[in-house]
Amino acid sequence: MSEVIRIFDTTLRDGEQAPGVSLTPEQKLEIAIQLDRLGVDVIEVGFPVASEGERKAFELIRDAGLKAEICALARADQRDVDAAIEVEPDSIHVFYSTSDIHLKNVLGVSRNEALERISRYVSYVKDHGFICEFSPMDATRTDLEFLKQACWAAEEAGADRINIPDTVGVMTPRRMYDLIKEIRNVVRIPISVHCHNDFGLAVANTLAGIEAGAVQAHVTVNGIGERAGNAALEEVVMALSLLYGKKTNIDARQIYATSQLVRRLTGIQLQPHKPIVGDNAFAHESGIHVKGVIVDPCAFEPFNPELVGRVRKIVAGKHAGKHGIKTMLEESGLKPTESQLEEIVRRVKELGDKGKAVTDTDVLAIARSVIEAPMEEMKAVKLEELVVVTGTGVIPTSSVKLNVLGKEYVSAETGVGPVDASLKAIQRVLQNLAKISLREFRIEAVTGGSDAIAEVIIKVEDETGNIVSARGAREDIVMASVEAMMNAINKLLAKKMR
Amino acid sequence: MSEVIRIFDTTLRDGEQAPGVSLTPEQKLEIAIQLDRLGVDVIEVGFPVASEGERKAFELIRDAGLKAEICALARADQRDVDAAIEVEPDSIHVFYSTSDIHLKNVLGVSRNEALERISRYVSYVKDHGFICEFSPMDATRTDLEFLKQACWAAEEAGADRINIPDTVGVMTPRRMYDLIKEIRNVVRIPISVHCHNDFGLAVANTLAGIEAGAVQAHVTVNGIGERAGNAALEEVVMALSLLYGKKTNIDARQIYATSQLVRRLTGIQLQPHKPIVGDNAFAHESGIHVKGVIVDPCAFEPFNPELVGRVRKIVAGKHAGKHGIKTMLEESGLKPTESQLEEIVRRVKELGDKGKAVTDTDVLAIARSVIEAPMEEMKAVKLEELVVVTGTGVIPTSSVKLNVLGKEYVSAETGVGPVDASLKAIQRVLQNLAKISLREFRIEAVTGGSDAIAEVIIKVEDETGNIVSARGAREDIVMASVEAMMNAINKLLAKKMR
Repeated sequence: MSEVIRIFDTTLRDGEQAPGVSLTPEQKLEIAIQLDRLGVDVIEVGFPVASEGERKAFELIRDAGLKAEICALARADQRDVDAAIEVEPDSIHVFYSTSDIHLKNVLGVSRNEALERISRYVSYVKDHGFICEFSPMDATRTDLEFLKQACWAAEEAGADRINIPDTVGVMTPRRMYDLIKEIRNVVRIPISVHCHNDFGLAVANTLAGIEAGAVQAHVTVNGIGERAGNAALEEVVMALSLLYGKKTNIDARQIYATSQLVRRLTGIQLQPHKPIVGDNAFAHESGIHVKGVIVDPCAFEPFNPELVGRVRKIVAGKHAGKHGIKTMLEESGLKPTESQLEEIVRRVKELGDKGKAVTDTDVLAIARSVIEAPMEEMKAVKLEELVVVTGTGVIPTSSVKLNVLGKEYVSAETGVGPVDASLKAIQRVLQNLAKISLREFRIEAVTGGSDAIAEVIIKVEDETGNIVSARGAREDIVMASVEAMMNAINKLLAKKMR
Repeated sequence: MSEVIRIFDTTLRDGEQAPGVSLTPEQKLEIAIQLDRLGVDVIEVGFPVASEGERKAFELIRDAGLKAEICALARADQRDVDAAIEVEPDSIHVFYSTSDIHLKNVLGVSRNEALERISRYVSYVKDHGFICEFSPMDATRTDLEFLKQACWAAEEAGADRINIPDTVGVMTPRRMYDLIKEIRNVVRIPISVHCHNDFGLAVANTLAGIEAGAVQAHVTVNGIGERAGNAALEEVVMALSLLYGKKTNIDARQIYATSQLVRRLTGIQLQPHKPIVGDNAFAHESGIHVKGVIVDPCAFEPFNPELVGRVRKIVAGKHAGKHGIKTMLEESGLKPTESQLEEIVRRVKELGDKGKAVTDTDVLAIARSVIEAPMEEMKAVKLEELVVVTGTGVIPTSSVKLNVLGKEYVSAETGVGPVDASLKAIQRVLQNLAKISLREFRIEAVTGGSDAIAEVIIKVEDETGNIVSARGAREDIVMASVEAMMNAINKLLAKKMR
């Protein structure tokens, strides 16, 4: 059981096939470097026949001198395989459908013809001196006897590994276990699994395949991929290590940074309850739990978040209870008396019952008003005036006057819209004080009338890598964005001055 | 194997414990009514001792006359159980920790004392005439012999069901199967499972528990809940029905509507690759796949999306390939020649290689420019000029010049923000032509930089009750709103003139 399981990362190939995602060659390089730092064994960079950009990505990544095996995808088809050979990867991943539904209805090819193609192109790849992994596409809906023939044909032709894809995600852990056992009986080369998540079972099916003897898993960072995505690298790796006692070459402390990079470059946001890497995966709000977490973190956590490069988050909220709120306030330097604390808790719950998502800021505001702390943070930068105009035949333009540590500065900028212009005008004023760049801009969905409150979340970074995020909430979406930006800047400057 | 598996929905209780979520009693009622329509067997409404709002939610839901069993949560504690009894549910879900880590480190209670509490409060609930479900909290980290004693104590005290919670999500499907088998050996009453998703295994563990003989599953809509959330209702139900051949009382066609309601009211957004209910779960982009999907949808889909109340989505993109793009264009009434099609595909791929997420709108724009289709719909109302200004100390003001059936009209209005002012100015010009009122205004969540494309959906109604909705998508959020409004007005007028 102590064999090292190989991690075959297909974020750049199957992950990039997610609708709406497309990465530039330079972005693929940036992700590949981080994947190599994370310690994946194989990086599937792309599908060379598909576009010029794919070929350029191989060129950049090949020249980066990574430790990982660099892999190119190709159908069992002359053009595809030639295109893959041309990009000079370490390995070529040849696939061909084996299920009747694909052979008959999509390709119009007989089973024998499929076997011939598999033999021909696996041999061809081997003759050209590349490592060859073969995948019988839609394996889990393929007639078992024919699937064995296809795997056998690939092995005979010289394939180095066989990968079993659950192309439409219809396996259960038990069936995956049984299937891999069956394949192991006919194949001597190493077996890999590639699971899709249509029923939410990709990770469990991957692990079941490994229990049955597979020694490699195809995964993507954040579980991105077509439809419901692929088995998530972070879930498979942490489960292998902590629940299955299996080793991988992954440096788990790099998991969160990798996840954030992929989130940023692909634009695919994660739900807060995404395991391991979601915003709430190590956040605690409920009263009972928070008490437990503070007394003994292990009581309500599967493992220490530092293992994956994260920190625990205690979130105030309607369920927070005394212990959570007290700890939170103490961390902010507020020490309410027992009766003040009770009043704060009562008012937080009241706010929660009104349906308001109670944030730490809300709790701090309540606490300050209860304790009557006169502390009002000094702000380094204040917005004195801002005027922005947009329209048809008008270049969106914003002019702004900021008070920076007592001195007034004026500037103007244009942009693609009034929000863009205003944020750029503010950044321009501050240029000499601090080079601040916008890392993320998010408008929460607004529903209601045109006078509904819009909430904007902004993340900014300074030149030394400090990152803060802040919110703005106004009926005027432009001014909400400006408010968020001003809050973020003041937070960042406060951090720098500390 | 044909027994009906009971679905115990805890969206309103464990789901609401997700950090940042808090529902008003009225919102809980709205979700409960939809859960009842969906066909869940039990609705856990909340934790009555926690707040006044929780108690109010029970009152509203109790009075709604739902078919489902209404359940209240209570620790094995006098105050909790009394609070639960007071809200007059159908059933009370009593829980108490049984793991040493909870008993010793959090509660400071001995095992014997825990057993006594379990017996006392289960009996107390039964004596008051309620259905009683008992959960040994942190069961999966509890010493097996003591866990059996605790379950046995609850059964002896009259409990109607035992629920086994994997409180910190550390089970594997195999271990869950074995554990439920063990519990079945000592307990005669029905067994339920409650799985958390810290390693992405909640759904698989739930299904493994059912394979071992559990007859009820605790789930939440969209899988929301503390940390990484709970087993997702939609994944468990669809897997049971399509992969495990088990029945539930769920009307699957209500799944998507329920998911959307919970997403909207809790504010918890889903990642696009969320199984079953995510935006991309039935979207197809990749070239190879799209061809397959069009030839035979079954080739790259685990099941027909209509089963869960959805439709298939064909998305153009850098991987789209000829087949996908051709089909998409034909659906929009565009019929390019073969050489035109090749030029369109080339330009779409080029755009994708630049890292731009290629949308259907982008593809249509490219296609129109290639085909040089001169068709420009005649519009009754055209926007000639619009200028809007906002800022600090500025009343957001918009001036507009519209061309209505060849005649020009000018007007201006103020509002709470630039969007509000612009939409009001447009409405004012049209006052005499048609009294148009804004029924709904929605901004889709925007993520990216401040230059990301914002999408606005507007619904307008005229005085005779005609309602239309339309979209606008621009980098300038104000102009996107104006575009949506103009599109909506023209659609409405076209409808009137027909």
